[in-house]
Amino acid sequence: MSQNGESSNRTNLGQAARALVVANAQAVLSTLRTEDGYPYASAVDYLALGNGDIVLLLSRLAEHRKYLSHDPRASVLIAPALNSSDMLAKSRLTLIARAVEVSDRNEFRDAYLARHPQARDYIDFSDFSFYRLSVEKARYISGFGRMGWLSADEYRAAHPD
Amino acid sequence: MSQNGESSNRTNLGQAARALVVANAQAVLSTLRTEDGYPYASAVDYLALGNGDIVLLLSRLAEHRKYLSHDPRASVLIAPALNSSDMLAKSRLTLIARAVEVSDRNEFRDAYLARHPQARDYIDFSDFSFYRLSVEKARYISGFGRMGWLSADEYRAAHPD
Repeated sequence: MSQNGESSNRTNLGQAARALVVANAQAVLSTLRTEDGYPYASAVDYLALGNGDIVLLLSRLAEHRKYLSHDPRASVLIAPALNSSDMLAKSRLTLIARAVEVSDRNEFRDAYLARHPQARDYIDFSDFSFYRLSVEKARYISGFGRMGWLSADEYRAAHPD
Repeated sequence: MSQNGESSNRTNLGQAARALVVANAQAVLSTLRTEDGYPYASAVDYLALGNGDIVLLLSRLAEHRKYLSHDPRASVLIAPALNSSDMLAKSRLTLIARAVEVSDRNEFRDAYLARHPQARDYIDFSDFSFYRLSVEKARYISGFGRMGWLSADEYRAAHPD
């Protein structure tokens, strides 16, 4: 493949990755267990931001938030075809990211509620806070064969549409 | 709650957890990245075994297998309602497990193909191997409120039906 072809292929990969993030709102979060360093997988709702980062609303009572408060290293899988039998032939994206608690809880409140209206039942509870996951790297898999790592710059530079 | 009530509640939690494993065949695997120790989330098919362990068919070319070969600590999320808007109100299970490569590739071949017929296209490729994930602990969440950790003994002693 020519260098231009390679470059255009990576742009397409980035666009497809960003489009997947925008089109979905549920993901699987991986964190690091404080007790024994094992990875820990859990289900989360998310809000997609304009630069490709995502925001989570986490309870202080939840295991994943305890783990993130000790170690901000995280990963997020977005896989809309998960739980279908041809899942491995469908698109999915792993984001490698660092989690930071958001100090102003009003910054994302309205946008989060617009995406997740059912969160109105608990969004104002004092044990809930927003965490921003800042993407450091991304791996996009478009079924068998087409896949690749994207740097933070490649991921952010791509447009979802 | 009485001690009997607590014990019966934990048995129910174990039964529900085991039933979820048997009823599904797709999950999200979390492994530890060799490069930087970040957790890594990826989509996998699985086969449920009679004792509650699960078996994965992994390619040597896949990131998660490279990571597991360096560090066997893993986690698996089974969440059939993932990607639905009421996902957080539905049952899901996180298994904390240690991965071991299976030396005899015929041990699980027929059972795996019965559960994942589409794997016939690659199951005999030399870069694929089975990995058994031996469960060390489990966290079952049955929507808001009902949740708990199960020890390996509690998880194994429960019957899925």
